[in-house]
This record gives sequence, C-alpha cells and structure tokens, in this order.
Amino acid sequence: MSRIAELLEALAPIGRNERGGYDRLAWSDADAAMRRWFLAEAADLGLETEVDRNGNLWAHGRGGTGPRLVLGSHLDSVPNGGALDGPLGVASAFAAMRSLRDAGEAPASNVSVVAFVDEEGGRFGLACLGSRLTTGAVDPERARALVDRDGVRLDEAMRAAGLDPDAVGPDPGRVGSLGAYVELHVEQGHLPIDGSDAAGLAAADAPLGVLTGIWPHGRWRIDVAGHANHAGTTPMAGRDDPVVGAAGVVLAARDAAVAEGALATVGRVEVEPGAVNAIAVRASLWLDVRGADEGRIRRVVARVTAAAGVAPVEESWTGAMRFARSETRRLAAVVREVTGTDAPTLPSGAGHDAGVLQAAGVPAAMLAVRNPTGISHAPGESAAAPDMDLGVAALALLLRRSSPDRVAG
Amino acid sequence: MSRIAELLEALAPIGRNERGGYDRLAWSDADAAMRRWFLAEAADLGLETEVDRNGNLWAHGRGGTGPRLVLGSHLDSVPNGGALDGPLGVASAFAAMRSLRDAGEAPASNVSVVAFVDEEGGRFGLACLGSRLTTGAVDPERARALVDRDGVRLDEAMRAAGLDPDAVGPDPGRVGSLGAYVELHVEQGHLPIDGSDAAGLAAADAPLGVLTGIWPHGRWRIDVAGHANHAGTTPMAGRDDPVVGAAGVVLAARDAAVAEGALATVGRVEVEPGAVNAIAVRASLWLDVRGADEGRIRRVVARVTAAAGVAPVEESWTGAMRFARSETRRLAAVVREVTGTDAPTLPSGAGHDAGVLQAAGVPAAMLAVRNPTGISHAPGESAAAPDMDLGVAALALLLRRSSPDRVAG
Repeated sequence: MSRIAELLEALAPIGRNERGGYDRLAWSDADAAMRRWFLAEAADLGLETEVDRNGNLWAHGRGGTGPRLVLGSHLDSVPNGGALDGPLGVASAFAAMRSLRDAGEAPASNVSVVAFVDEEGGRFGLACLGSRLTTGAVDPERARALVDRDGVRLDEAMRAAGLDPDAVGPDPGRVGSLGAYVELHVEQGHLPIDGSDAAGLAAADAPLGVLTGIWPHGRWRIDVAGHANHAGTTPMAGRDDPVVGAAGVVLAARDAAVAEGALATVGRVEVEPGAVNAIAVRASLWLDVRGADEGRIRRVVARVTAAAGVAPVEESWTGAMRFARSETRRLAAVVREVTGTDAPTLPSGAGHDAGVLQAAGVPAAMLAVRNPTGISHAPGESAAAPDMDLGVAALALLLRRSSPDRVAG
Repeated sequence: MSRIAELLEALAPIGRNERGGYDRLAWSDADAAMRRWFLAEAADLGLETEVDRNGNLWAHGRGGTGPRLVLGSHLDSVPNGGALDGPLGVASAFAAMRSLRDAGEAPASNVSVVAFVDEEGGRFGLACLGSRLTTGAVDPERARALVDRDGVRLDEAMRAAGLDPDAVGPDPGRVGSLGAYVELHVEQGHLPIDGSDAAGLAAADAPLGVLTGIWPHGRWRIDVAGHANHAGTTPMAGRDDPVVGAAGVVLAARDAAVAEGALATVGRVEVEPGAVNAIAVRASLWLDVRGADEGRIRRVVARVTAAAGVAPVEESWTGAMRFARSETRRLAAVVREVTGTDAPTLPSGAGHDAGVLQAAGVPAAMLAVRNPTGISHAPGESAAAPDMDLGVAALALLLRRSSPDRVAG
C-alpha cells in the first residue's frame, strides 16, 4: 500500500457516519480527532508544529530559510461529505515530505504543511474562515458572532476546543512569510478542460490537472414571510403560505441558472414553526450561485429576487480569481514530468483557501486529482490510488525543484 | 374581570415565547406547568383529581352517580401556537363548575373535567394521542416508539415527566363510564355556516356556534430522493436535486387542493444534509389534507403522488365524523337560552378529542366561541371576553340541565 493510501486509511474511521459519509464539521469532536492526527503525523516526520491564532495547523520543516513553500488543504467536511475533500491535500503533502525524507533528500526551499481550519463553512456558514481570518478578509468580530444551527456561537465552539477566540484576527507577518501555496485537491464535478471538448479529467484521460482559477461565487439568504394559521381551517384562497412561496423561489432559481448558464442551488431550508398541521409563518432558503463570470450570477439573483418578492440577503461574495501564473507553470512542469504528458488545465467551480491566499497576494496554485464520478461534498467522492500516487509524486518533485519567486515581506 | 378571563390571565405567562406565541408541547416543562395549574384549580374547586394511565388529567365531582358528563379539552399547543386552542375549553369547564358552586347549585349529573394529553401531536406527530390511547385507537407499542425531532422517544419524555410509559394503553372501563363529552373550543377558521351564505361566526353575527362534525383528515410523509453533490461543480443538466423535486410537490399539492375544493398544507420540511454548498440527498415533506369528504382528499393525494414520483406514506387517517345528535341538540338548546337566538351550526376542519371519543361510542358535542380573526395554531388566535363568558354560561346551564342519555357500560 502506498503512503497516501495508508494515511487515508488511518483517517477513514474518523467522523464516518452510518451512511458512509463524513461529518467532520469545524470544531466538532471529529474535527478535533483530525487535528490530533495532523499534529501526530507532523511530529512523526520531525516537523515543528504550530497552532496559529486562528486555529490553523502548521508543520514547519526545520532549518530552511527564505520564502516558504506551503503545501496543504483542510481537514473539515460538509455534513455527510466525502473522505477526500480536504484531507487528501493534507495527507498528500505529508506523503510528499516523507518520500523526500525516505530518499535522504531535502526540499529546495523552506517548506511547511498547513491545514486551514473551517474551510467548508458547513457549520457556521462562512467558507474558508481560517484563511480569511489570517489574511484579514473577514472581520474577527463578525466571525466570533457566527452562530451554528444549534445556536452555538463560533467563539463558544472555539473555546470548547481549547482555543482563545479573542486572539483571532489578521496575521500579516505570517502571510508575508509565505512564498507560495500549493493545494492538491480531488477533482470536483466534470468542468470543461481548457482548449478541449472534454468535460472532466476522466474524459480527457488524464490523472492530474492544473486549476487555473476559481469561478465567482455568492451565497444569499431569502426569508419568505407568510401568515401562520391552522392547516385544517384556512381556505386555500385566504392563505399566505411561505412554504408555497419558497417552492416558487426554488424553481425560479433553477430556471434562472439554466437560462444564464450558471449554477444555482438551494441546499438548506428552514420552516418556522415546522408543525405538520400549521401553515408556516416563515420559510428561509439559502441560495448558492456560481458561474464563469459575475454578470450571469447577478442576473440569476435578480430573477430570484423578482420571484421571491423580497431582496435576498448576501451572506458572502467572492469574485473571480486566477491563480499565480508562476506557480501554475511550475506545477504544470512537474505534472508533465510525472505523467509524461502535458497537464490539462481547467477552472474550479468551488472556492478554496488557495483562492483566499491568492487574493491576499500569496502566489497560489492547485493540482486536481481525477475523480471518476465527479461527485464531491457527498460520500460518492472518489479517486483511484494510482492517480493519488501520481499527485504525491508531483508534489514531491515540486519540493525538490521549487524555489518560490516571491521575496518574503 | 370574569372568572374565565382571570383563569386565562393566570395561564398567560406559561410557555409564552418572545414572539407572543405559546410553546406548550406535550411533556415539555411548559406542559408540566399547565398540568400543575389544572390540579391546583381542581383542588381549589373541591374536585377529586386523577392522572390516568395515559397521562390524561381528570377532576371528578364528588357524590354524583350514573353516567358521567365530562367537560374539557387539552392544555398542550402546537409550536408557536395561540393562547386559547385547548386551554379555553378546560378553563371554561372549571369556570362553569365554579359558577354553579358559587350559586350553591349542584350539577344535574355526575360531572368531571378532563384535560387530554398531547392533543396537538405537535411534538410526536400523532394528534389526539391521550384520547386515542384511552379508547384503544392507537397501539401502545407504536405510541411509545414515537420520536420527536430531537430524537427523544415518547416513552423517554413520559418517564422524564414522572409517568410510567409501560402503563399506557386502552382504558375500556373508563370509556364505558362516560355518559357524554362536551368540548368548548375557540372557532378555527371561518368555515361555512350550515344553511347560510355566511363564512364563520363573525359573519353570522353569532357569539357561539355548535359544531356538527369533523372533516376527514390525513397526514402523509413524502420523501423525495436525489443525488448529493457539490453545489459549485455539478452542471444543472446533470442534477438530481431533491429540493427542486420537493418544490414541485408543494406547488402540486396547492394546485390539487384548489382544484378539488380541499385544504392541503406542507408545514414541515426537512432537507438532508442541509448544507448551503451541497445539493441535498433527500428532502422530506409532511402533507396535511382535509376536506368535506374523503373522495376529494384521496384525489388530492393521488395528484401529489403523480407529481412526487413516489408514494406518500400515510402517517394518520381520520374519517369523517358526526357528533352525537342528542348531545348536539342539548348544546343547541342551552346556547339558544343564553344568547336568545338559534345557535348556528357549522363543521370543524380540525380534529379534536371529541371526535376520537365519538368514534369510540361516547356521545360527544362541541361548542365554538367566535374568533374574529379566524386564526388558530398561531399567536393571532382570539376571542372576545363577552363571547367567552357566554360560552361559560352555556356550559353552566348544561351542567344544571344535563342528564346524559347513555347508560354507563
């Protein structure tokens, strides 16, 4: 069994639910177990571990100097997520570090492995929270006050996990010390390969691909208000039923996304009070919209606004982002070397910490490992062991060759 | 202040939430406070109190013989319900008993006041649970295994409230001893007055009305299955999104109810896993359908089945029910006496313990108190104090005059 397969096998039981999916929400017990694994694996590799003020985990190579090349990803999952989204990137980084150590080689640059905390936003609703706090892209006060669906505040959850929530906030010295950030990730969906008719790496017959950037992306909350009343005594004509209103909004969002060539999803719904025999007083929907450019996203939201009769509340917005050409070229070169062919390039429809760092001035790049099903954020997420091994080999070669351009600031 | 107004004022703080509604779900702390109030009020009236094997509360008049005339209702509420649905009937019964006692009069028959437990089914999903258990209309094993949305089983909730769940079950001796059951209730909705164009007691300019029966009524659960996937990477064309499917079901239910002249409501929705950035794997809807006859209800469910592509699971079914002509006539007579005009008669769209008892052979009747808004199961539920006083006067007159026909069995 290869090292990456061994590492993933060790993680397999953590946070696994009875449906075969993973519940590793930020600051949960399962998340804590994943974090303990990170610290133990780093110690075993002789790396120096550090938990930063925002709860991100770092494992630093000793003795290097100069701008730091950072490999990593995250360890948390969405509710009932897959095994690979996040952990594959962290485990691959460790496996690449180990392959150099086992060969008696040293990285060409100062190197660290990172696991950013709460990347998915699956619990508190704000994605990439660890990297956003570190780069100053989110206000610490706002972050501390985020509330999960059980009414637990982020600061309470952090405190319960042994962190000091009063310490969270921007960490410009750390950001300035990062020469480059490279994140390996399981392919998500089957998006169009640049300069090709193929959709997805499987169709392009390629084990690895290089991501060129991230689609713009927003999240909105839509509260449809109605008039609560008895289900058995209120004529249909006299009703103001917010569940009926919300149903129209869901269909309008779907139709608008199809019309605009964008992606729109309602994945979370809450109905108040939620009694079987009562017309509800309020139905709340969370709308996720993405697409190749901002214009089509804004047009989807405008159509949904017209259907809902209320203005959606923007909970997050992330503009289009292109990864650093320098790091992307370097990554494409090592992929060509380990696979023997040119690396396909493609966009990412999902947000990532790499996008947050790139937006904060850290050159970032991402390597995608072929996902035959295309499924992600669900138990069906998958990658073949030989493809993962090639990904680790590419990262290891990057460690041997890399010398980030950026001068530490 | 009249006695009924005083009694309701004493109850006003119990289980009241910050939106002005009431959360008095069965076996909750608020429900326990309501139950303590019942026992204290009964003791103050010199009545003999009893908690039966199913948790229903009884207050028996002393010294009477023969078939027992029972007045009462329930004390629990739906989530965020109104102040009157249930407690008005219990408090009116106590107020009527007190008015006789204050006048030095004795009821014409053996009399009890009852508060049936868990009438709303707002927590465990099965309405009229206390009366159904007592009459044998629900299997005790099934009842004990009911689970609320927090995963608490009914037997656990009962045990936590100090009851023995192993004792629940049919109580045929008790049912046989009941000569008649009369329930006063706030009007729900504005349903058509028999032989009139008026909809609701306010339109008929009548403070009180006599309910002739209860519409048939069913509840169904509809599980719409889909394929979980990432919201940002799955093309619209390749999606199997259960939230979109569920939205179509909600609109189909509304359209079918309008077409059939029935009532259809989706008041509870659950989406799994419920993450903002994930296409859900399952959306569950609870559908409540009622109407003047069974045929139109079954046709609504058939149309919904076609739209959903899956068969709804019937969680409960209650056929059409007519209250006892003898008790209804007796009730109409006392209403005529206290109001000076013939009592309007009208159907009930809502289920009640009176319907369960009637179906079990206990002659039952219901008295409705005018509700100007028609709103029920919501904070807007209302009745004017003079109308409630007239309702109490009608019950008091019934106590003076009544002599149930039925021979105790």
